[in-house]
Amino acid sequence: MSERRAAFHALHHAGRPLLLPNAWDHASAAALAARGHPAIGTTSLGVAATAGLPDGVAATAGETLALARRLIRLPMLLSVDVEGGFSDDPAEVAEYVAELAGLGVVGINLEDGRADGTLADTELAVAKIVAVKAAAPELFINARTDTWWLGVDDPLPQTLARARAYRVAGADGIFVPGTVDLATLRVLTERIDAPVNALYQPGGPGLAELGGVGVARVSTGSLLFRAALGAALAAADAVRDGGPTTPTGLPSYAEVQALVPMDGD
Amino acid sequence: MSERRAAFHALHHAGRPLLLPNAWDHASAAALAARGHPAIGTTSLGVAATAGLPDGVAATAGETLALARRLIRLPMLLSVDVEGGFSDDPAEVAEYVAELAGLGVVGINLEDGRADGTLADTELAVAKIVAVKAAAPELFINARTDTWWLGVDDPLPQTLARARAYRVAGADGIFVPGTVDLATLRVLTERIDAPVNALYQPGGPGLAELGGVGVARVSTGSLLFRAALGAALAAADAVRDGGPTTPTGLPSYAEVQALVPMDGD
Repeated sequence: MSERRAAFHALHHAGRPLLLPNAWDHASAAALAARGHPAIGTTSLGVAATAGLPDGVAATAGETLALARRLIRLPMLLSVDVEGGFSDDPAEVAEYVAELAGLGVVGINLEDGRADGTLADTELAVAKIVAVKAAAPELFINARTDTWWLGVDDPLPQTLARARAYRVAGADGIFVPGTVDLATLRVLTERIDAPVNALYQPGGPGLAELGGVGVARVSTGSLLFRAALGAALAAADAVRDGGPTTPTGLPSYAEVQALVPMDGD
Repeated sequence: MSERRAAFHALHHAGRPLLLPNAWDHASAAALAARGHPAIGTTSLGVAATAGLPDGVAATAGETLALARRLIRLPMLLSVDVEGGFSDDPAEVAEYVAELAGLGVVGINLEDGRADGTLADTELAVAKIVAVKAAAPELFINARTDTWWLGVDDPLPQTLARARAYRVAGADGIFVPGTVDLATLRVLTERIDAPVNALYQPGGPGLAELGGVGVARVSTGSLLFRAALGAALAAADAVRDGGPTTPTGLPSYAEVQALVPMDGD
């Protein structure tokens, strides 16, 4: 296994979670890397919205690949959100993901939620994982199950069943967004024999609490992107309405320029 | 003159300034349009940083054109920052800007500051304006002079001389970033026979004060982009450090998705 990929696997500690912040463009990724984050993910909502495309409907395969090409030059490990692989043909998913792996991407998120708000059949989700694992064996496959996210009835048994199937198929980690209930997460981490990824929720439990119930990775999903957009609107409102416009931590022009690679690298 | 372009010209009132907020991607532009802004500009720093390219060195001609193609579908008037026209050949600048005008862009910012921190010769800046005006006569050319921005000695006389030359060449407005001194701006608006554009500075005079000295347009430059980036980093820090992460005005997932055109429009 390559050194970078081994390093990414090693960042997943049950009980001391990896915080994986999610970027959507070069600036957000470079700034997060400069802040010391050893690894970052991408947010499919952010990638879609910046391009004027809908999220979660396999519309951003090109944008996601182009973003990966940009971000791979940055000095952090990169995991890419590929929604459901942008296809329901496992071979196409595998081909797409292999191209990401060839760039140096160390991991992906692959979700079983579908554009129509239902879960993909377990067999299809498993087939995608098997195909990706065969095409890119070193990649960290973070298999996301949208049981809570899509509000299925009685999600715990289905989550455990899918996690088991995805793990057998080759998933390296299991991502269960949509619940931050600590008792639930404790059951998940005790019953799933792989790093469990929780989605951070504003106002919910913090890293330490999530780590306390065995979570190994905490990602921010679209939170940072939405915080950015909200702050831009708030600043525009403040200029329009004569309010104060000196947010704390405002990067300077020079600090933004410094995020760009030098010498055409 | 087309209706859209006439509408953009009419938004410039000496004494009741047009607030032109600056966007850098589809999400920021769509959100500002949804907030009711009748016109928006682009920020070259934001466009460059999101693409991982340096600002102000003619590196983003392709990205700027691609962004204009995306934003022109939105329901607001669009003015595009083209730095110095991405070329020192006036014919190339005119060809590039004519392509923007052909998309429906109503205005451009065209600057005389150069990548090496000096001002372009007045003759070259004038030649670009003349060429653009001939190629796209209806476009609002906001000629930016970087006398204050680049810190030239005794900037007022040079600013007035350049403004006069640019106006004779065909500029529709004059943009003087880098000073929000109200006495200086009053001199500029009294001595320049065209709408004067000031760059908003956090902590500086507000719209009403700038309008009071005759400013006709106030733009936010890279402020909104920098506020967005700063907020994303602050949110990531808060998650890492266990601080509060519920910024006011945080757009929801659904609100972000709603910014995207429906039905593949």
